[in-house]
This record gives sequence, structure tokens and C-alpha cells, in this order.
Amino acid sequence: MPDATTTLATLKEAVRQFAADRQWEPFHSPKNLSMGLAVEAAELMEHFLWVDNEASRQMVHDPAELAGVAEEIADVAVYVLNLGNTLGIDLSETILAKIAKNAVKYPAEQYRGRYTAKP
Amino acid sequence: MPDATTTLATLKEAVRQFAADRQWEPFHSPKNLSMGLAVEAAELMEHFLWVDNEASRQMVHDPAELAGVAEEIADVAVYVLNLGNTLGIDLSETILAKIAKNAVKYPAEQYRGRYTAKP
Amino acid sequence: MPDATTTLATLKEAVRQFAADRQWEPFHSPKNLSMGLAVEAAELMEHFLWVDNEASRQMVHDPAELAGVAEEIADVAVYVLNLGNTLGIDLSETILAKIAKNAVKYPAEQYRGRYTAKP
Amino acid sequence: MPDATTTLATLKEAVRQFAADRQWEPFHSPKNLSMGLAVEAAELMEHFLWVDNEASRQMVHDPAELAGVAEEIADVAVYVLNLGNTLGIDLSETILAKIAKNAVKYPAEQYRGRYTAKP
Repeated sequence: MPDATTTLATLKEAVRQFAADRQWEPFHSPKNLSMGLAVEAAELMEHFLWVDNEASRQMVHDPAELAGVAEEIADVAVYVLNLGNTLGIDLSETILAKIAKNAVKYPAEQYRGRYTAKP
Repeated sequence: MPDATTTLATLKEAVRQFAADRQWEPFHSPKNLSMGLAVEAAELMEHFLWVDNEASRQMVHDPAELAGVAEEIADVAVYVLNLGNTLGIDLSETILAKIAKNAVKYPAEQYRGRYTAKP
Repeated sequence: MPDATTTLATLKEAVRQFAADRQWEPFHSPKNLSMGLAVEAAELMEHFLWVDNEASRQMVHDPAELAGVAEEIADVAVYVLNLGNTLGIDLSETILAKIAKNAVKYPAEQYRGRYTAKP
Repeated sequence: MPDATTTLATLKEAVRQFAADRQWEPFHSPKNLSMGLAVEAAELMEHFLWVDNEASRQMVHDPAELAGVAEEIADVAVYVLNLGNTLGIDLSETILAKIAKNAVKYPAEQYRGRYTAKP
């Protein structure tokens, strides 16, 4: 089920079923899920801890390294989906609304090629 | 565009276009994106810093609080999507493969209602 | 060398020597050290991921658990000391100045028993 | 009170008094303190989010930037000290023991100038 055809609803349902099968909903408070997400984000970051930015781009050309990194990203994504389920929010709407808000906050002409606004 | 019909490909394209419009690709090394993701995860976590698990469930009944939390989740998700683009990975396949792997690692009968295996 | 008699200078010197013996200074950029610190903070947090606040207090009565937690705290502290060395800052002065600043930001009478200001 | 003469006990006492004055001990569970530490670590990291390692070294030559960074490091350190108080652990002993353990784990001759062991 590739990105081209998989909806967020399908992915949310997969993690909902996983949690329900284990009766893990009582552990899935917003506080706990946000902690778990931060832990997984740190595990992803650890892959790139001692390298330069350019080296981090090269590293992921190694298939074994990329597979390890992809797995950490999946761990993060699973927490995002669990948060979506626990909080009852529509992730797609939320993400697209945030991108629209960011487009106003970071006007393309002022931020082109820069991560701070043009003076 | 709700979760029921929005594909990962649609969301990835939205963040790809956003970055392209600002020529931000040079900043989007795996190292930087993993750091940014961890920063946003911490901002989400900060909402629930001083409360108990149960209180964190109550908090999100407040619409203004929920909106703030949802926005932080969107920030995290945007980094996940950017990582998917930069690394050229199919997020849906990766997520579903990880859920399948976790199902083997955490057999339902051993972990039902428990976050550690039954002794 | 207990807390009662050990100065920050002694601890900073111990981590400086450790890094010098391995010629690790080139890896110790502020960016990398801040990432490493965040990774260790997440490893500490992971100990308390699925428990309630009260249970986290009980857990650390177990000597083996406490030893594991203490080791993660040490990992965090080593990064703080490395940052102090790399940046050439006096940690004691910095910490005491921040406590003084916080005392103004959080007046005791307004914040007594509360993590938000009295209305 | 500079690093040359300030003991860990002095710093721990300063944060203990600060918390006692506000009756904040009930909030200072190990779980909450580990979350707060991770949040502050992320705020420190955010300073160096979009720059290369070398640029992060240059940034801190700017006194205003360095002051901002130093303040985030102090925030992290205050959480470490609070954890030391809450858990009743001797931080100096813990840190020095961890450095000794790391010296065995990372023999200088194998790790000189490398963050992975010589093949």
C-alpha cells in the first residue's frame, strides 16, 4: 500500500487496531504519547549525531543505513497516528491548515534560500 | 481534504512544494530535519509537562487547548513528510511494515493491558 | 569525591581530559553537543514513559532502577560539562544567574503550589 | 561564585530552596523532571537547528548569542540538579563513575579522532 493510494484514515485504523488488540488505550494519554514521540525522535536523531549535514545526506545512500533510519521515522509516525486517534483530530486537515499558515508566516520572496527573513 | 480521502502522496507533495517555493532544500539534510523534528516533539510535550496522565486527557477537551496541541502535531508531521521527501522513502509502506514487525515483537496475548511482557 | 566538596571546575576538567585523550574536540561543536544532550535526555525520559507521576516516584526506590536512571542523568551532565568547556562559559555563574532570574519571573507568593500564576 | 570554587552541593541547595519556596516538590516527579529536561534540551538545540557544525562554533562568538545559549544550558542544568535532589543521588560521584565507565568502553587508542571504533 504505497503513498500514492494510502490514506491517513487507513494508517490511523492500522494503529488503532494494533492498540485495541493489546488493550493499550489506557497507556495512550496525550502526555505519554507526546513523551514516546520525543523518545523516537531522539532515536532518529542519534543516527546523525556526529556527522556534518553533508555527510548525513551521504549516509542514507547506504541501503542498510536508510532502512534503519526509515524504521525510526515509522516509529515517530506511529506516535503521530496514535495521537490523531486519541485526540480525535483529522491529521490531514490539521497538516494542510498548518502548511497554509506557514505560507503566510514565511513569505516565499522574503525567505527564498534563507531560514531567517531578509533584513 | 480529510483523512478519509487524503493520501500520503498528497501531503508529501504539499510540503515538497512549500520547500521548493522557498528553495529550502539545502537546509533539509537528514541531520537538520531530525533535529527540527525533535524540537517540535518537545514543543508538543511541553503542553503536558506538569500534569498527570489523566489531566492530560481532560485538557484536550478544551477546544483552544486542543487546537494548540493539534498545531504542534502538524509541525511534527510536516517534518516526517519532509524526511520522506528528502530520503525518497515510501512512508505508508514503511509505517505498515513497522506495525507488522511490532505485532511480532509484542504478541497481543503477552502484552494485553501491559507495556511489559507477562512474566 | 562527593557533591559536598566537588567543584564544577573539577568535573569540567575530568570531561575535558577525557575528550582530549581521544582527540574528540573536532566532534564537539555546539550543534553536535546539543544534539547529544537531547538524545541522552530522551534516554532518561524513556525510563518513565508509561508510568504515572506517582509510579515514577516509586520506581526509583528500586536500587537497580535508580542506578540505571542515575547513569542517564550522568550522561546528560557530561554533555552539559562538555558544552561548558567548548563554549568557555562558567556554569556556576550561569546557573546561579538563571535561578535569580527565575526568582523574579516566578514570584513565590503567586506561584506557591502552582505551576501557573494565580489568576 | 565561579566554577573554581562552587560545589555541586551549593548548586543543589540553591535549586532545592527555590522549589521549596514555591512548594513545587509535588510537581517534581522523576517523570515530570525528565520531560522538562528534554524540553529545555530541545530549546538549546533549536539555536543550532539550521547551521552547519562549523557555523555553530562561529555563532557563539557573538556575545548576545552566547548569552542566550548559556541561559538554555542553565535551564538544562537546573533540571539535572532538581533530579539530583528528588532522587537523592550524589551527582559528582555519579558523573565521575560514568566517566570512568566510558573510559573502559571507549579505549583512547581505538577511538582517537574517531567516534566509532577502529576496524
